[in-house]
Formats: sequence, C-alpha cells, structure tokens
Amino acid sequence: MGELTVSKRLSLGMVGGGRPAGIGELHRLGARLDGRFELAAGCFSRDPARNRDAARRLGVDPGRCYADFAAMAAGEAERPDRVDLVAVVAPNDMHVPVAQAFVERGFNVLCEKPLALTLGPARALQAAVARANAVFAVSHYFAGFPMLRQARAMVAAGALGPVRVVQYEHASEGLALGRPDGRPPVGAIADLGVHGAFVARFVAGARIERLAADAAQFTPGRGVEDDARVLMRLSGGARAAIWVSHAAAGLRRGVGLRVVGAKGALDWRIGEPDLLRHAPVGEPVRLLQRGGDGLDEAARSASRLPSGHAEGTIEAFATLYRDIADAIEKRPGAAPLHPTIDDGIAGAAFIEACAGSIARGGAWVDVPPV
Amino acid sequence: MGELTVSKRLSLGMVGGGRPAGIGELHRLGARLDGRFELAAGCFSRDPARNRDAARRLGVDPGRCYADFAAMAAGEAERPDRVDLVAVVAPNDMHVPVAQAFVERGFNVLCEKPLALTLGPARALQAAVARANAVFAVSHYFAGFPMLRQARAMVAAGALGPVRVVQYEHASEGLALGRPDGRPPVGAIADLGVHGAFVARFVAGARIERLAADAAQFTPGRGVEDDARVLMRLSGGARAAIWVSHAAAGLRRGVGLRVVGAKGALDWRIGEPDLLRHAPVGEPVRLLQRGGDGLDEAARSASRLPSGHAEGTIEAFATLYRDIADAIEKRPGAAPLHPTIDDGIAGAAFIEACAGSIARGGAWVDVPPV
Amino acid sequence: MGELTVSKRLSLGMVGGGRPAGIGELHRLGARLDGRFELAAGCFSRDPARNRDAARRLGVDPGRCYADFAAMAAGEAERPDRVDLVAVVAPNDMHVPVAQAFVERGFNVLCEKPLALTLGPARALQAAVARANAVFAVSHYFAGFPMLRQARAMVAAGALGPVRVVQYEHASEGLALGRPDGRPPVGAIADLGVHGAFVARFVAGARIERLAADAAQFTPGRGVEDDARVLMRLSGGARAAIWVSHAAAGLRRGVGLRVVGAKGALDWRIGEPDLLRHAPVGEPVRLLQRGGDGLDEAARSASRLPSGHAEGTIEAFATLYRDIADAIEKRPGAAPLHPTIDDGIAGAAFIEACAGSIARGGAWVDVPPV
Amino acid sequence: MGELTVSKRLSLGMVGGGRPAGIGELHRLGARLDGRFELAAGCFSRDPARNRDAARRLGVDPGRCYADFAAMAAGEAERPDRVDLVAVVAPNDMHVPVAQAFVERGFNVLCEKPLALTLGPARALQAAVARANAVFAVSHYFAGFPMLRQARAMVAAGALGPVRVVQYEHASEGLALGRPDGRPPVGAIADLGVHGAFVARFVAGARIERLAADAAQFTPGRGVEDDARVLMRLSGGARAAIWVSHAAAGLRRGVGLRVVGAKGALDWRIGEPDLLRHAPVGEPVRLLQRGGDGLDEAARSASRLPSGHAEGTIEAFATLYRDIADAIEKRPGAAPLHPTIDDGIAGAAFIEACAGSIARGGAWVDVPPV
Repeated sequence: MGELTVSKRLSLGMVGGGRPAGIGELHRLGARLDGRFELAAGCFSRDPARNRDAARRLGVDPGRCYADFAAMAAGEAERPDRVDLVAVVAPNDMHVPVAQAFVERGFNVLCEKPLALTLGPARALQAAVARANAVFAVSHYFAGFPMLRQARAMVAAGALGPVRVVQYEHASEGLALGRPDGRPPVGAIADLGVHGAFVARFVAGARIERLAADAAQFTPGRGVEDDARVLMRLSGGARAAIWVSHAAAGLRRGVGLRVVGAKGALDWRIGEPDLLRHAPVGEPVRLLQRGGDGLDEAARSASRLPSGHAEGTIEAFATLYRDIADAIEKRPGAAPLHPTIDDGIAGAAFIEACAGSIARGGAWVDVPPV
Repeated sequence: MGELTVSKRLSLGMVGGGRPAGIGELHRLGARLDGRFELAAGCFSRDPARNRDAARRLGVDPGRCYADFAAMAAGEAERPDRVDLVAVVAPNDMHVPVAQAFVERGFNVLCEKPLALTLGPARALQAAVARANAVFAVSHYFAGFPMLRQARAMVAAGALGPVRVVQYEHASEGLALGRPDGRPPVGAIADLGVHGAFVARFVAGARIERLAADAAQFTPGRGVEDDARVLMRLSGGARAAIWVSHAAAGLRRGVGLRVVGAKGALDWRIGEPDLLRHAPVGEPVRLLQRGGDGLDEAARSASRLPSGHAEGTIEAFATLYRDIADAIEKRPGAAPLHPTIDDGIAGAAFIEACAGSIARGGAWVDVPPV
Repeated sequence: MGELTVSKRLSLGMVGGGRPAGIGELHRLGARLDGRFELAAGCFSRDPARNRDAARRLGVDPGRCYADFAAMAAGEAERPDRVDLVAVVAPNDMHVPVAQAFVERGFNVLCEKPLALTLGPARALQAAVARANAVFAVSHYFAGFPMLRQARAMVAAGALGPVRVVQYEHASEGLALGRPDGRPPVGAIADLGVHGAFVARFVAGARIERLAADAAQFTPGRGVEDDARVLMRLSGGARAAIWVSHAAAGLRRGVGLRVVGAKGALDWRIGEPDLLRHAPVGEPVRLLQRGGDGLDEAARSASRLPSGHAEGTIEAFATLYRDIADAIEKRPGAAPLHPTIDDGIAGAAFIEACAGSIARGGAWVDVPPV
Repeated sequence: MGELTVSKRLSLGMVGGGRPAGIGELHRLGARLDGRFELAAGCFSRDPARNRDAARRLGVDPGRCYADFAAMAAGEAERPDRVDLVAVVAPNDMHVPVAQAFVERGFNVLCEKPLALTLGPARALQAAVARANAVFAVSHYFAGFPMLRQARAMVAAGALGPVRVVQYEHASEGLALGRPDGRPPVGAIADLGVHGAFVARFVAGARIERLAADAAQFTPGRGVEDDARVLMRLSGGARAAIWVSHAAAGLRRGVGLRVVGAKGALDWRIGEPDLLRHAPVGEPVRLLQRGGDGLDEAARSASRLPSGHAEGTIEAFATLYRDIADAIEKRPGAAPLHPTIDDGIAGAAFIEACAGSIARGGAWVDVPPV
C-alpha cells in the first residue's frame, strides 16, 4: 500500500485507443491511477479526424499527435523529452510491427495481448527486445490481481504440493450475438485462450508441453472460432483444460481459475477478485482476502485499500503500470511482476499449437518452449 | 408436493449395502422417506456374519436374508410375497450378473451406476430387460434433483435455443490420499464421468457422438486413473467437456454443470442444489429456486418442501424411488423420470470409448449409439 | 452417520396435520427417514371426512383414527400398544391443551412451536411435564441442523471467546400477499421470532434478559404484525437483534444467523445449511462443512451423508425425531439435543415480552427467566 | 462510460491526508482516476515535517504547502490560480471549522463524513453554504457505487412499490483489537452508522423520523461505543434497522443493504459491489450487474468498464470526484449525484439523535428534519 514520490511523472505515448471506451481507455485509467504517468503523445487512430479528436479530448499536445506509428517512433525518438513508455493498443495484427518499431529505437514498450498469432514474427520481436536495453511488457492484466499474485506465491512456496490440475475458463456472451465492434473478429483462442495460457504459466509456474484443441463456430458468419476447449499437459506432470467462449450466450463474468495440487486447491473468480479460496487437504476451505492478514508480499504490495473495500480490473491494470514504472525507474527494492516478452512468446506458441491441433482434427501436438 | 395413499407399502430387496454407511444406506434413506417401500429381504454381504448382522440391524426377517444373490433370486421368486423391487448396490463388477439374475425372473430392478464398464455385458442385460415385463432403473440420482429436472424441461422447451456447450465437473479429494474404502479402486471415469455423461443426456437431451479423453494417475499405487478430462461432440452440434477427479486434494463439493445455448445459459451446483441460475441473453441472471413460482411440473412434483427450506441428495434419491414406485404401481398420471436401461447402456458406451481414447493417446473415437 | 438397530419401530400418533402438505407432512417425512417411527394413530382434523381421508391416505388403522384429541388421549391410554410418541401439529392455540392432555397420561410428546403465546398456560404445562416421567420436546428444528450444532459446540468451547453480538433474521414474503392458508394469521414474532429466540439460546448459550420490539403491519387486513425488529440484551453482556418478516416481498430464503465474539464470528444461512463460516480474528475465514474433518461429535452424529452431498430441512427434522427416539429408548451413549419444555417456556416468555414492549411503544422490558 | 475532454484539469487542494495510506490516499486515487483533477496545494499535517514530506511525496509545490488550514484558505484565496476544490480529510472534529473557512471564501469543498457529531455547528455551516455560490459535497462514497445508484433509481421508479423495510449493516473487526490508528477513537455510530443513515436516504428516498439506539463498548478502554443497533421509523411508514460494529472480531467485508417494498426486495453487498440482487414478488431473483443491459442511466454513467470486469471502492470515489468536477464546470447534461450539505446535516441529526436515545436507555427519540 504506501505511496511513492511522484515529483516527476513518466510520460506515456499510446498507439491506438482512439475510441472513448475500449482497451485504450482501460490503459489510460490504469496509467492515471497511481499518478506515475502522464499521457503526452500518441497516434490514436489511422483516421486523421478521429486521431485529432482523441488527442484533444485526452489533452495531448497537437504537435505530439502523429499520423502513423512510424512517424511517432521517428518523431519521439528525436525529442529530448521523448516518451518514457509506449502503450501499443492497436489491432492485434499491428502489435508486432508497432512494438518492433519502438523497441528498435530503444523505447520502453507495453504491448497489448496477444503479442502475435504465430511464433515467427514474435521471435523476431523477441530478438529485438534482447538487443535493446529497455523494458518490454505484455498487458496480461491478470498478473496485476493481488490474489492471483498470492496464488502464484503459494504455489511457488509449495503450499499445494506438486500441481496436478489447472482448469481455466473464460466464457462470455461477448460477441454471441454477432455485434460489430469495429474491428475484425478475433478468435476465442487468441483473444481469451492466451489469458488461460498466461495464467497457467504465471500461477502454476508450468510450461504447456502438449495440447489438443477442439473449436467451434456457433455465431454465423464470424469466420473465426468463437468457442474452444483445449486439453493440455504441463511440465511437471500436471494436466490442464481451458474453456473459452465468445458464444456463451447470457454469461458475463465467466473467468475462473482452479489450481489443484497434491496438498490442496486454489479457486479464483473474476466476479470476486479480492478473494482466493484455498482448500487444504483435511482442513476447512480458507477464504484468503486481499488486504487480509498473512498474505505474501507480492499480494500486499499490489493492494491499495484495506480489506472490506473492493478492488478490481482497473487496479490490476494500474499495478501493471506501476510495475513498469518501477522497472523504468529501476527503483531499488521493487520487484516488478509484469508479464514480459517471454510471456508474449509463450502465448504465440499456444495460439499456433491450438491452430495446428484444430487443423488436424483435434490431435495432440507439441508446444515449443519459449 | 402432495402425498399418495400408502396403505400398502411395496417390499424392497437389496443386494449389497451391508456396511452401515455407504451407498446402501443412501438407498435405504431414499426408499424410506416417502413411505412407499419397506425393506423385506436382502443379501447384504458375501461375508455370512456381516450379512446376518445387517439383516438384524435393518429389521429384515432372517428367513429372507440370503447367502448369495442367486439364492435370493431363486428364493424370492418362489414366494407369493416376493419383493416388489430389488436394489442392486453390490460392487461394480457384480451389477450386470446380479441385475440379470433378477430381471430374468421378472423382478423390477434398480441397479447402481455404472451399469457396466464395457458395452458387451450391458447389451446382454439390455436384451433381457427388453424381454421382461418389468421396471428397470439405474440410480443416476442427479435425475432426482428438482432443479436438474427444471433444467431438462427448459432445454426441451427451447428456453436456451440450440445447445452449444455442456461443461460438467465432478472433482473431489475422494481418494486423494489413497484411503482404503474396502473395495477395489474405481477409475474416475467409471465412477464420476458417467454422471457427466448421464447429465448431458438427461439435461441437454443430446447423445455423445465422439470423444477424446486424457487421464492421469496422481495417487501412487491406485492402478486406475484418478483424474480425467474428456472432450466430447454431442448430437446437434454441441461441444462438451468433463473434468472428473478423485485426486482433487481439498475439494469436497465439486459437482457443477453448465449448459449454454444460443439464447442463454444454465448453471447448477451440488452445493446449492435448490438453485438453478438462468442467464438469458440481454437480461439479468435469474435465480430459479426449488419451490418457487413458475417452475415446470417435473420440478414441482420432485419437490417436497416450500422454497426457503433446503432439500438435498436424500430427497433426490427418494424421488428416484418414488418414480419407480409409481412405475411399478402404474399410477395414472405419473410421469416417472428415473434413468432407464438405455441410460445405463449410454454410460457403458461412454466408459468404453474413454478407455479406447486413452489407449490411443487421447485420440478422438466414436461412441456407438444406445 | 452409522445406523441403529431398528428391529422394532416406535409407534407415532399425530394430532393435526390432515393436509397433504404443510407442517404435518414435514413431521411425517422426518419421522420416516431413519425408520425409527411408524405412524399408527391420529386425529388429523376436526373435520370428520378430512380426518378419515388423512388416516386412509397415511395408512392408519381406522380404529385408531380419533374424532378429537381428548378421545385420542383416552383411547390410546387404554391400549397395551399405545403410541410411543404424540406429535402435536394442531393450530397454535391448541398446542398447550393438546400437549397437556397427553403429558398428563404419561405420553411422550413432541409439540410444534410456538409452545404458547403467553407464559401462563405454558407454565402449567411445564409443571405437568415436571410431574410426568416422559419425554417432552418442542419442534425447533434448527436444533437438528448439523452446522448449528457445530456452532453451538464451538461457542461452548470458547472458540469465539465471550459472545458479543447475535444477529438473526428470518424474512420471507410468506404471507406478503395475504394468501389464505386456511388458518388464522400468526404474528411474525410468534411464528418466526421464536426461532430467533431459540437459536440465540441454543447456539450462544445465552438468555434474553431485556428487549425492545418494533412491529409493523404491512399487509392490509391481517390483524397481526407481519414484520418486526427486536433489540435484545443477553445474559453475559451480549447484544442481539432479530428481524422477522412475513411481509418481505420477494424474499424466499431469508434465514440467517451471525454470532460474533471477542475472538471471531460465525455465519450460517438456511440456503446453504451444510456450511458454517467461521471468521477467526487475524486469520482467513474458514468454511466448515457438514461431513468435513474436524467437526464436533454433535455435528458429526447429526449428519447422514459425506460432505459433497447436500442435506437440508427434512434431515434436520429427522434428527429431532432420532434424538427423541433415543431419549424414549434411553439408548446408552445417546446425547439427545432436541429442544425441551424449557425452550418452549423461553419462547413464550419472548413472545409475551415482545407484546409488552410493542404495547408500550417499543420500550425496553424485562424477560423473565425460564 | 465515455470520456470527457480533459484539456484543462481542475486543481485540487487537500487539508489532512498526510499519511501515505488512509482516507487521504483514497481521495487522491479517486481524484486521479478520471484525470479531472491535479493535486496542487495542501496542508497535509499539523506536524511541519510531515506536512513538507507529504507535499514533496505528492509533487505539490512547496509554496503551496501551508502550515495550517487558515493560512491555506487565506493564501489560496489570493492566488489567481486558486484551487478549484478543497478536499477536507482532517480529523472529524475539524470538519466543520475547516470546511467553513473555505466555504466562506467561496471555495468548492468536498468534506469527509461525518460532517459533524451534533447539529449545532452543522447548521452554521449549512447557512454558510447557502450564502456561498459554490459546490459543497460530503464524501459518502456509497453514492458512487453504480449498483446503489441503480437501486435508488428503481426505488424512485416504484419498482419495489412502497418501501417497507431497510436493513443496513456495517460490521468489521476494525478496531476490535484496539489497534492504535493515530487518531482518537471514533464511535461506531458516527463512523459507520452515518453510512447507513445516508444510504437509507439515498436509496430509499426516505427520512428518519424516529429512532431508538442500543450501543455497547466491547473493546476495553476505547471510551466510545464500538457496536450499536438502531431501530428507525422512516417517512412513508417504512421501518429500518442498522447494525454497526468496530468490534465484530473476524469480519472484514461486512457492509450489506436490504431494501424491501410491497412488490419486491433489493440486496447489495460491498463484497460484490457490481451486483444488485432484485427479488420481485412471484418471479425468480434477478442479478442485476454493473455494465449489463437494462440499467438506469444513473448506473450506466457511473460505470467505467463493461460487465465481466470488476469495479470497486476507488471507482466509487472517482465517481464522486467526477460528479463534483461536472458540478464545478457546470457541464450541460451532467446530473451530479454527489452527497450534499443536506446529507451531511441529516447525518449529524442521526448521530445526535442516537446519542440522545442511548443517554435515555434506548428510548425512542424524534429526529429533526434537514
């Protein structure tokens, strides 16, 4: 909890996010909450009028509102007050090219997920990140929820014993009715499944070694899968299953994670993000609560309010931004837990493997390591 | 909710169930609740002393306590007051031979699940049932929960539109610690997975056409799988997944069912069996409640108390017994919903197909129709 | 869990309960479940035809179907096979006269709650019970819920430290719409409030010393209060509040109990009767579960199924009947926890005190001890 | 959910809030989230070193860090860029004098609750506010929760019919263990009870006409009540009860509100602030969800993320700040719902009446109108 000195805010640039609502706004809320960043530049839309409108609405100097991301990368690179961080919230197919343009100029980057739909371009970006001396983060915001940090710490400390089972679900009516959202439809695996792959990696500390996927397309005319189930074998012997859906008509709060080990189980739900249910063998279930006693430092430091006050998604996003600010400023003692390029690579490997399995009728396929 | 004339109780025989607790006791509680049956004969254990003890404890006339099931079938068949129903609660490998012995003599039979682990013997029993003019039921007690009857009625009436997804889980620490229970260990698929296969059939009204199974053995020395995930394709285009586990350390109340269609979703949990969550597209989630207004007759008639009082597993079992009593007595107007030999066959087909898939490394296999 | 020898069932008589549904049926379900009782005699209705119909429907010998309770008391007293227990489920104003008629002839009696609306007649019955050598119980069925027995045991063992607060609520739309139920309306305090008074006594082990009540009549034309709040001071310094309502439109599952002490709190809800939430100071909330590890013997012995199976109201009622059977048969080792005449007296004192407070504009009044 | 033009931020001053955590930090988080305010001046502590440290940590110009609130009021009043809003988060006994100093100089003010413990000083401030042409708000942040705005709109629209019952509870172990928090202890009524009084007013639209209070002091040495129950009669005939506690050992998330009318009931809990349970008579309970379909504009406009993402206390606080910004800027179309001086007066009247009742042994007392 505590508060850091904010005498000088870091400056933030944004590529994409021109609409008032949507993922760009979630980034802006997260970036503002702790007062560590100030939005200073951007290329918010390929449409010039929309771009200018967004800049004005967001208080960005017209001189730092760029026509395209290449112009922004070039323009900011020349400024002495160049932005400290670039948030890439452009459409999925632009993630790698935009991120790469900034990484290659030495900018710190926070890229939206999924990093990429295939491993090839993601590997090229990975190489660029390795060459650059900069912070690179992927916006898997589940990493910002205090009770998922607590879960991660408990698994790492052996509280569950060896992990046996991971069950992840992310089911929403989302696009069940085929509502247009202004962008081409994204498959449920690339959009939601990567969260599951990330969370398995983040919480269970395991790698996906093999998987078999079954996908469906229930909403007419979407052109991509809107529902899928994936069976997985994880490093260390654990088994896992993911259910993701954009076609789960009626469902709204469908994110759930269970991790079961030899000594107990954990259960977390997006609907009550401040709670983590811990079921130890031979004892009653324990309801661990954000802000409560006995939590790991990783959970405590990601919490802003005492227990009894609800926190949620914006706070989780803000914690990613705070971690990135700590990493940029190299704060002594800070232990950033933001997802990295490796998490992005793991996500791309997962998506590519799922596509391969589906193309082979749901057969089991190997997933390459990061 | 009303009450039927019980001037003459039906007489019940039991094969197995000699232990004071366990599945036999659940049958006795269910058979007693509505006062439609009186336990009158049995072969409770292969161990003579245990058999006699059980008979005495349960108030069964020593002259109708038989040394083995064959003697019981023969002995009861000769009596003018032969038992009206035989409950088969013997170990799994005895289900078919015991049931068959009684069916062939024209007894009404209620057989524990799973009916059989393979289709071959189950088909022979199916033929015998077809020849006999008797009631045959399988004890899939989920069919007795009022709110699962409600779910079934809603799906049948099209309240969800075409079914898209069925997710079933049944995870318990059960034998996580390898505790002896006096019988050889049963695999998670045969013990728990058949419930999922049954519920998909009962609620969603769909047949399992293909499946792929991944099983694990986490508890050392069990010799059978104690955890499994099964992906399924159902008739009508729906997809399904099952997670069953005897190795889910710490979990105790792990039964959950979700059914998602094009127009909404249903959610049911064993921990709150009187509730059915209905999430219709574009409207708030509705909490349908046993005893509440607007439920289907199938749900109303399976309910004994007004809403606000909790019912549970014993009541569900009692409803199976009530349905069987209605079927035996051919009550006019009664609409028994107890699981039949076809449900037992479907269960055996599911188990056999899972075994086939596991043997082939989790490949997709066809499931024969009933 | 275990099962007792039931070679000879106790015989049960019933006064009232002629309707197929209703409280009489709940008694019959509870009496049947464990096979300890057989309904053998009754006076089910003052209406002769209804009385005969009920007897036939319930399988009671016409010769033991009596025209009125006095005839039943006299007739049964003369029989060598007189009933072992009389369940009094007649209207509230008949509880004391009926119970007294049977107590004075030495019958064991289970009387519905509230025992009486005023202390005077209840005291006379108390004296008669003291003279008789018989079992007398009051049907406060909350005493049968395993997790309320667990709560009682924990409070008694000091797990909460000194009790500070008891909060009880029992709110239902019940008669919100003024639906006729064939009997004169009963006030919310006498019908529901006595449950709260009983539970405070049963779980917290405390006596109500003073109270102040505020009642309302929201449903037009009822003639009695249908909603009330009562503040209470308990022995030992604890404070308590009760909210009861027949006018809580829309509510169906409104029973909840919280007990807070210096070292932690307990929370129990009728909607999930198998759960008891225990919040110890400085530790996560623990979900104690019927059938789970580490429960008190009083909770274990009131449980029939392993955890993971739901139990409910019928089982709670059956536990009262089992306790009464144990008391009648003087089973060695049995520790009956059924409510006694003293609990009935405490209830009458509570009702009378509430009426006194309401008559004085909600002033604080003393509650006499049992 | 849209986003407003933020080309020029409003400047914020703060009195109190020098500690890194605590109520001041909650104000700063809320003020920052939407980017409408920038902290520009303050008097954060009476301790000079602490005051300077806070200013530096928070990025406030040393020239606008004032030694006391009077100096700040005088100093800011002379500046052409005087702060647009003063947040008063000083100790309770300073609320009125500090607020008054700024109101009298024409500043817009947001004052922490409780406005005052007695009506006298609050009335003087009320008069000053009436004379000033400025915005005055009280930080009853429950007004910022979207689903409480939804509840308010539903009650106002008659969805519940005439309100019958309001039940509010706010129980926490808070200071159960007597932990020092650096300020003198505040009574449970003034600290928590005023929330209940506010919520009854905000949601049910009713005034408290009479009340009777019973308070206890369970934690040794506190000197003020740490637990209380208040019965209330509201305008329009509704009855209400409040339970507040700083002594509820073990409880952490104890805020709950129920509002029951003739046609249904609403239920809201702090633990799941995005949900509002609506129980209409004769229909299943409906789970209204922030971000879901069919909500009132007042709820929609207070929501930042789609349903499925969790929001919480910080967002509720931010909505107060947004409303105040709208009021200051006189945005066309904005409909600020922030609590006003009248809500503060109503709170002071409630506290004073409770004290009067307690002093008279829990007798019923009148509560003067605002």
